[in-house]
Amino acid sequence: MSLGEFEFIDRLLKPLASAAPGALSLADDAALVDVPDGHQLVVAKDAMVEGVHFLPGDPPATIAQKLLRVNLSDLAAMGAEPLGYLTVLARPPHLADAWLEGFAAGLGADQTLFGCHLLGGDTVSTPGPLSLALTILGTVPRGRALLRSGARPGDDLWVSGELGDAALGLRVLRGLAVPEDVALGLVDRYRVPRPRLALGRALRGLATAAIDVSDGLLADLGHIASTSKVAATLNTASVPLSDMADGIPGALEAALTGGDDYEVLFTAPADRRADVEAAGHTAATSVTRIGSIAEGSGVTALDAKGAMIPLRRAGWRHF
Amino acid sequence: MSLGEFEFIDRLLKPLASAAPGALSLADDAALVDVPDGHQLVVAKDAMVEGVHFLPGDPPATIAQKLLRVNLSDLAAMGAEPLGYLTVLARPPHLADAWLEGFAAGLGADQTLFGCHLLGGDTVSTPGPLSLALTILGTVPRGRALLRSGARPGDDLWVSGELGDAALGLRVLRGLAVPEDVALGLVDRYRVPRPRLALGRALRGLATAAIDVSDGLLADLGHIASTSKVAATLNTASVPLSDMADGIPGALEAALTGGDDYEVLFTAPADRRADVEAAGHTAATSVTRIGSIAEGSGVTALDAKGAMIPLRRAGWRHF
Repeated sequence: MSLGEFEFIDRLLKPLASAAPGALSLADDAALVDVPDGHQLVVAKDAMVEGVHFLPGDPPATIAQKLLRVNLSDLAAMGAEPLGYLTVLARPPHLADAWLEGFAAGLGADQTLFGCHLLGGDTVSTPGPLSLALTILGTVPRGRALLRSGARPGDDLWVSGELGDAALGLRVLRGLAVPEDVALGLVDRYRVPRPRLALGRALRGLATAAIDVSDGLLADLGHIASTSKVAATLNTASVPLSDMADGIPGALEAALTGGDDYEVLFTAPADRRADVEAAGHTAATSVTRIGSIAEGSGVTALDAKGAMIPLRRAGWRHF
Repeated sequence: MSLGEFEFIDRLLKPLASAAPGALSLADDAALVDVPDGHQLVVAKDAMVEGVHFLPGDPPATIAQKLLRVNLSDLAAMGAEPLGYLTVLARPPHLADAWLEGFAAGLGADQTLFGCHLLGGDTVSTPGPLSLALTILGTVPRGRALLRSGARPGDDLWVSGELGDAALGLRVLRGLAVPEDVALGLVDRYRVPRPRLALGRALRGLATAAIDVSDGLLADLGHIASTSKVAATLNTASVPLSDMADGIPGALEAALTGGDDYEVLFTAPADRRADVEAAGHTAATSVTRIGSIAEGSGVTALDAKGAMIPLRRAGWRHF
């Protein structure tokens, strides 16, 4: 038996909207959202396609979590708070009910964790691969959003957490042999990113520019450099690797060019290092100083001896 | 030569965002949107898949227009004003540059017409059919949105414009033989809906419930009846048909069960008929009284003699 569109909405999606009055029980053409006085709405939209952004065998609950979390990560990078979300699900024929149930369960668990609710969306049929899109709505105090464009010469370059695990997790799913506990940990980092919402909030008024690392550290640093019209230097020896990644051949390359880490890459004035450390402490998130900003353009990567590393691969493309 | 993702965004999408400062030139992770004091945000999301919601041969400009307009129609049905939109485009391999150019041109023409701008979105690759999604943002004065749930016993039932042309247009594209000028007119109504934004605004504080006719008149009337917990009676002889449709066999059935009309179906107190006529006049949109609301549940359709028509097909499914 297969859940029809209306049953899917009634049984699995409506419960996700029940705590949000503006979702109108998903019974109307649109949702109504109140933006608190003195705040701006922050809105982002990301899509995921089976075989491109996730693997056919990935559990539906973690696919749902990744879809929500990559969008939450966009809010985190702007210092915004989540408010709610809308989804589009394009269903191929013969999608199992259990898949839909797992997907809804993944959203349900995460919306409780992150304090945001389903507000609406659309469910359509497709002959092609399973495709998902999510629009996230958030708020930020007016004028306080972190942008990509504010990096200034003399700023430090920082990153949250550890880089490269997600790309290594994908390699594990494709056959890279590592000890079992490391494999589980890396795959989890690939499947379930951790949006750095608390850090984003703590960096308001402190970071001069911010972006989440989705395309890869070098590529995303390039986005900050070009949007801010500055030059960036990255000390690759300072790039934080996890204990899991340390020792795996190619771990540094994964950290530099692998995508899907969803850590926050940001700049801050050099005289505010103590404040950045304090923000990391407040957010219970490690922060590491990995480079600096200067006049000019482009990205330079230095090795442990300060020698320039030739950059052949600026980023990372989805498989 | 094929436009890469960054070129597509730079050359074709950025110009659509240039007049919206909050779009941040599409260079950031999210867009910033100001909601005016005393207003609520209205947000809706609709998706379209090639072969399901549009035909492979449909012109890309009208596909873009339909994508934007079906979402604008959701705003119209709530009495909201458009503010901006975000898109997701999932591109199959070998999608022609000319297709992307036509798509962007269609959005460009319509966003000028409707006064809203591109705020962001995502472009992804897919092995499957071309898939599109759009999130529309609008505003409505606080507490003044038209909902599906407000119909009351004694209300009249009204509809804007004329019904059935879109479904007949689809039949023309599948081979229905009609005179050439009629064919062109009907296909245009299928491809390019007319969101009734001015009427929606004029109905604030007047209509008790409203919905846009996307699934079909009977199905959408069923949504009002169930959400408002009332019974609805439809006088099918009063349902407005266009001069183009009049005389085509099956025109009334198309008007009752065909989807894609995107007219506004609404209820209003019987003592405000003159106000409803005036609202239609203000919005330069015809309005026709087609039935009434009573206590109870469900939808009853009557023929010209007042006899009940058995309803076998409550709605319309996408082909």
